[in-house]
Amino acid sequence: MERKNGRKAQPEGRPDGRQADQLRRYRINRFFQKHPAGSVLIEMGNTKVICAATIEERVPNFLRGTGEGWLTAEYSLLPSATNTRTPREAARGRQTGRTQEIQRLIGRSLRSVMDMKALGERTIIIDCDVIQADGGTRTASITGAFIALVEACNSFYDEKKPFPVKDFLAAISVGISPAGEPLLDLCYEEDSAGVVDMNVVMTGEGQFVEVQGTGEGRPFSREEMNRLLELAEKGIDELISYEKDVLGNVLVWRVGRE
Amino acid sequence: MERKNGRKAQPEGRPDGRQADQLRRYRINRFFQKHPAGSVLIEMGNTKVICAATIEERVPNFLRGTGEGWLTAEYSLLPSATNTRTPREAARGRQTGRTQEIQRLIGRSLRSVMDMKALGERTIIIDCDVIQADGGTRTASITGAFIALVEACNSFYDEKKPFPVKDFLAAISVGISPAGEPLLDLCYEEDSAGVVDMNVVMTGEGQFVEVQGTGEGRPFSREEMNRLLELAEKGIDELISYEKDVLGNVLVWRVGRE
Amino acid sequence: MERKNGRKAQPEGRPDGRQADQLRRYRINRFFQKHPAGSVLIEMGNTKVICAATIEERVPNFLRGTGEGWLTAEYSLLPSATNTRTPREAARGRQTGRTQEIQRLIGRSLRSVMDMKALGERTIIIDCDVIQADGGTRTASITGAFIALVEACNSFYDEKKPFPVKDFLAAISVGISPAGEPLLDLCYEEDSAGVVDMNVVMTGEGQFVEVQGTGEGRPFSREEMNRLLELAEKGIDELISYEKDVLGNVLVWRVGRE
Amino acid sequence: MERKNGRKAQPEGRPDGRQADQLRRYRINRFFQKHPAGSVLIEMGNTKVICAATIEERVPNFLRGTGEGWLTAEYSLLPSATNTRTPREAARGRQTGRTQEIQRLIGRSLRSVMDMKALGERTIIIDCDVIQADGGTRTASITGAFIALVEACNSFYDEKKPFPVKDFLAAISVGISPAGEPLLDLCYEEDSAGVVDMNVVMTGEGQFVEVQGTGEGRPFSREEMNRLLELAEKGIDELISYEKDVLGNVLVWRVGRE
Amino acid sequence: MERKNGRKAQPEGRPDGRQADQLRRYRINRFFQKHPAGSVLIEMGNTKVICAATIEERVPNFLRGTGEGWLTAEYSLLPSATNTRTPREAARGRQTGRTQEIQRLIGRSLRSVMDMKALGERTIIIDCDVIQADGGTRTASITGAFIALVEACNSFYDEKKPFPVKDFLAAISVGISPAGEPLLDLCYEEDSAGVVDMNVVMTGEGQFVEVQGTGEGRPFSREEMNRLLELAEKGIDELISYEKDVLGNVLVWRVGRE
Amino acid sequence: MERKNGRKAQPEGRPDGRQADQLRRYRINRFFQKHPAGSVLIEMGNTKVICAATIEERVPNFLRGTGEGWLTAEYSLLPSATNTRTPREAARGRQTGRTQEIQRLIGRSLRSVMDMKALGERTIIIDCDVIQADGGTRTASITGAFIALVEACNSFYDEKKPFPVKDFLAAISVGISPAGEPLLDLCYEEDSAGVVDMNVVMTGEGQFVEVQGTGEGRPFSREEMNRLLELAEKGIDELISYEKDVLGNVLVWRVGRE
Repeated sequence: MERKNGRKAQPEGRPDGRQADQLRRYRINRFFQKHPAGSVLIEMGNTKVICAATIEERVPNFLRGTGEGWLTAEYSLLPSATNTRTPREAARGRQTGRTQEIQRLIGRSLRSVMDMKALGERTIIIDCDVIQADGGTRTASITGAFIALVEACNSFYDEKKPFPVKDFLAAISVGISPAGEPLLDLCYEEDSAGVVDMNVVMTGEGQFVEVQGTGEGRPFSREEMNRLLELAEKGIDELISYEKDVLGNVLVWRVGRE
Repeated sequence: MERKNGRKAQPEGRPDGRQADQLRRYRINRFFQKHPAGSVLIEMGNTKVICAATIEERVPNFLRGTGEGWLTAEYSLLPSATNTRTPREAARGRQTGRTQEIQRLIGRSLRSVMDMKALGERTIIIDCDVIQADGGTRTASITGAFIALVEACNSFYDEKKPFPVKDFLAAISVGISPAGEPLLDLCYEEDSAGVVDMNVVMTGEGQFVEVQGTGEGRPFSREEMNRLLELAEKGIDELISYEKDVLGNVLVWRVGRE
Repeated sequence: MERKNGRKAQPEGRPDGRQADQLRRYRINRFFQKHPAGSVLIEMGNTKVICAATIEERVPNFLRGTGEGWLTAEYSLLPSATNTRTPREAARGRQTGRTQEIQRLIGRSLRSVMDMKALGERTIIIDCDVIQADGGTRTASITGAFIALVEACNSFYDEKKPFPVKDFLAAISVGISPAGEPLLDLCYEEDSAGVVDMNVVMTGEGQFVEVQGTGEGRPFSREEMNRLLELAEKGIDELISYEKDVLGNVLVWRVGRE
Repeated sequence: MERKNGRKAQPEGRPDGRQADQLRRYRINRFFQKHPAGSVLIEMGNTKVICAATIEERVPNFLRGTGEGWLTAEYSLLPSATNTRTPREAARGRQTGRTQEIQRLIGRSLRSVMDMKALGERTIIIDCDVIQADGGTRTASITGAFIALVEACNSFYDEKKPFPVKDFLAAISVGISPAGEPLLDLCYEEDSAGVVDMNVVMTGEGQFVEVQGTGEGRPFSREEMNRLLELAEKGIDELISYEKDVLGNVLVWRVGRE
Repeated sequence: MERKNGRKAQPEGRPDGRQADQLRRYRINRFFQKHPAGSVLIEMGNTKVICAATIEERVPNFLRGTGEGWLTAEYSLLPSATNTRTPREAARGRQTGRTQEIQRLIGRSLRSVMDMKALGERTIIIDCDVIQADGGTRTASITGAFIALVEACNSFYDEKKPFPVKDFLAAISVGISPAGEPLLDLCYEEDSAGVVDMNVVMTGEGQFVEVQGTGEGRPFSREEMNRLLELAEKGIDELISYEKDVLGNVLVWRVGRE
Repeated sequence: MERKNGRKAQPEGRPDGRQADQLRRYRINRFFQKHPAGSVLIEMGNTKVICAATIEERVPNFLRGTGEGWLTAEYSLLPSATNTRTPREAARGRQTGRTQEIQRLIGRSLRSVMDMKALGERTIIIDCDVIQADGGTRTASITGAFIALVEACNSFYDEKKPFPVKDFLAAISVGISPAGEPLLDLCYEEDSAGVVDMNVVMTGEGQFVEVQGTGEGRPFSREEMNRLLELAEKGIDELISYEKDVLGNVLVWRVGRE
């Protein structure tokens, strides 16, 4: 009953009726494709991303002979994934700045929890292909790719060595609505309308790997930033719990094993 | 027991135990994505393609003011769709010749059953994105895209005018095994090993729209060609029956309506 | 007189007065350019193509050390070759889908009569440059390139080994006119107007290497397809006879020699 | 004296002997080039960037007829600007992901203090060309471009309307050294060695426009983040004071005028 | 015997036995292709270039509404035209610097004898496609394109207006051999060996339009330059006489008509 | 007094009041950037170019194992360098023909005074980046790059071997004004208006390395050409004197040392 009253006081609410600090319905399906070493379909509300991890038995030139491996990431939207069809980058002949920025973010985030010595002279290629977009595609990509990465590392894992993935990792978006309310896990409608937008990537240890906040509509205060970081921490905490459910005991036990 | 004997007579068999004239297990899921006017996921065995149809309210320059519409198609493989990862065309900066050949085939095939006057000054863009490849991706794309196209045309259909799709359409691959046996609906393993490969596109009226036969391993005779066309006719006949089941009475009734 | 009557019954006739099953005037000039290992100018009516074969003493990576060679083909139209000037692909920065499709067809067709072991670790590059286009440029390219290929193989041929070209090869287009008449060797005007278009590549043994039929204007029946294949066989038979005249006894004798 | 002792306790110090919370020597030369509407050379230590603002009397299509303007930014390194020569992007034929990410950041940051209505249907193009790079080129670009932007807006400013620049803006990098010490304004050597790197853009009002923190070497805690933001605030505060000196009373008075 | 003595005096001789001031055998075939408004095949020794002029009834944006026309030129080598096969620019995706430099030279040279007002709002596109290269392809292109240009202008010429081509134009290469001898009209062998290379374009009035001299092997003196210019004048004089023979009285009379 | 009268007779004068045979104010600042082996800022009036020489310890494939080095040059305009902003080539994805022509000229000119054996298996990359353009950017680039080249060669010079730079080198533009007056060192305004434009590169020995003359507005006579070459010789003579001042005795003594 109070809730309903509360709704009256904030007549805008959230388009899908969520609480301000509530994640969308999420799900990760493992073993989604048969060819890659790791493959998942992650859904965060209507956002759906196929995340695959492929292993190649070679490294970039600058790592040859060092005994260390590498991880790189690519990101793409199916043209049909968005509200208005997105022109195909392969037809245009180049990737947009947005695409490049996102794939750099995904790669950097996942590398932050990798032990490249334990990986050995291999390259892991992460492919995040968005098949339906409704906000938060880059953070869903990171969370999904983390699971695919663990699967891929497990495929060649030798128990006598440290596991190449050192810690859990998940990501979420947070933002401030035009009415000034901090929100967790923005859908597309909220993201477009929002005045501040922040993507946060954190580890299982509760530390930050990436914080990217932008005052699209107006600058934001230190206090607002603190509030957004708290929301993000809450959401990531829940996602990492779910990751552990999805991976199961054996894999959870391997992550971070030295 | 008999089976085993049968196997001896055809010692190669098919990798998945099918008869020479048997299709793989197929399925079409409609309404797969929420944004496009038409969207399906088609599965032919392990081959899975997302086929989407988007409507744009404009036409290429050469059609402006003619009252006629256009249809164009794009095709892509997710990098993770193939046995060995396929480099992303957007990263390479250009589409391969194979991709261009396939998307030209898809567009030409679908245009052959369109009434461009009935479409009006609109462009339909077909996107076929292969999420798992196991042979026959181009023919699965055509069959799946046909359903998405009917859905898209239905979205703006005005009952007083002819329906823009004039006839049913489906496609299948056929080929000749190294042992000389004609086979229907080749999987990747059969396609790679095959000496002759043919893609056939046919209408609901049982006529040919495209026949593309290639003697990859050796030339083929007129008689072999006839045998392949018969297999293709059988397979396409079955697929068009299934298309009618999938579309349901109302849409089946509209196709070809004048 | 009968002819004239015949004309009345088919008032459209052919633009250049040919019979339905008659090839255009054709000619192949050998030794057209001085640098390549093989070079011809082929004319089919007003269609004129320079076909050159260059030998490079290296193979693509996937063949290194196998003792086998490779053949690849490139195709281009001079901008001034067409009725309306065609924009230069080098200036646009990419080859069109049509160009890529044609050069893939030329390469595949010629490879079908090659013995790659006999070729040894060499690459033959076929260049087909159309200097005047009037329909049938891709089939003229294949026929002309075949002669250039034999010349090029002869340039390094060692009599103790099999000759790298195993059989004769020629190609022709066939199609169906708007009046429903099957026609051999379409000129541009017939090709543009035609409702069905088919390119056929055959060997000296009378077998098919490629059959690519398209119902541009309407689908076509099995019976029509048979009629088109018969026309193509007749035309190719005549072209292969001419190829033998052009090559002369010594080279004719070498083709297919084991 | 104590300070010197302190130095002993942190034997690594900073390569140029600065305090942890001290900016490098900075300087902004206005009117550096004669052609653009605004042009400055900004130096932050050995980092030197030419920042120019050009006005074009047209807007992107999506803004035509809205009465609003636009601002876009481009960034480039002279090949000779870096320690090891950087290949020229124009010769490679594409901009790197890093370049695109930086120019998106510069554009977004400057747009956050613009009143697009007051700008009117004009586009301001910001060019940041780094002629010598020693860390912090993106933040120096933003700070320098801000001055060029004010100059450019002044060139067409009509006193009866609001000034198109609403607030001051400056940017700085902060980071954490391998020894765990938070540092202000990293030079290249510190940036390469650092374990955490953060770029902060703030307004004259002391609010955040962009916060981009990355744990390159290890994740970082909430507490560390707070310490970095404090350092950044201190540095930006000093830079904005300097911007006011550089612009002089008349222009300072115009910024934010409504 | 005398020859041998002669050889001693000029120990190098010319590879084809020409005098130092003698042109190679030259020939221009008009009406070489049927589609363009003007088309010639020019041969200078073994160098053979197809030069075509196409008329488009539109002008670049900067000339719209001015009543003036434009001329632009494109140049390409068939891959098979050169001693060692030249990679196809369309396949590489970009034109080389050499190609761009040559087509800029051809366009500039031809524009220098055009009356753009008399041309009216039309664009003439010159295509120079080298089918066999043996030195001097850029100068042969200019000479051949001049004839194609006159043909094209004649195709729309209205006798009451000035003829758009104001003067005759031809081009030739000259150079200095390693033995220090100035030579006219270098073949490929001479061009490669030469220490100085100069391309000269002149009008029927005997004035210079372009002089491009390069000391590839060593710098050259003022005196040598004078000697080269004299050789060029002699060669161009002969070529312009031939151009008049080729064009015939009517067209000769039109060139320069006001 | 006479001068003043003279001015009346030629009322156009030069925009900056110079004599026809007078260079603009010029200056070369050495050690302009800290990273490259050689770096200067050259100013010719308002034209300002950063010229840098970088040494790489490798050579192109065709020189490997020959003991010889190579020199290559790149040229670019900052977008903000020109009167109207020049679109960035890296954003367009390709270099213009003008850029390629200029960088080929710079490379060829500098190579003409290099002893590639003395250089050894190294590549020198020259970067000429124009930060302000007011005519004569290509000739200023050559003159400035010469100084950077000497600096770079000095950085690895071993006194027992010949110095890799054999002679001095400088470049200047000359042209003919609409009034028919030959002018030295054209500024942008003169260059745009001029009817003839010539770039001349000469050695310290007073010999020509490049002469590129173009009759943009009208053809020019042999006599005019001679007058232009005299002006160029005078200007280059003065520039080479200045180069010697700038380099100082030690380096002057090394140039040409064997």
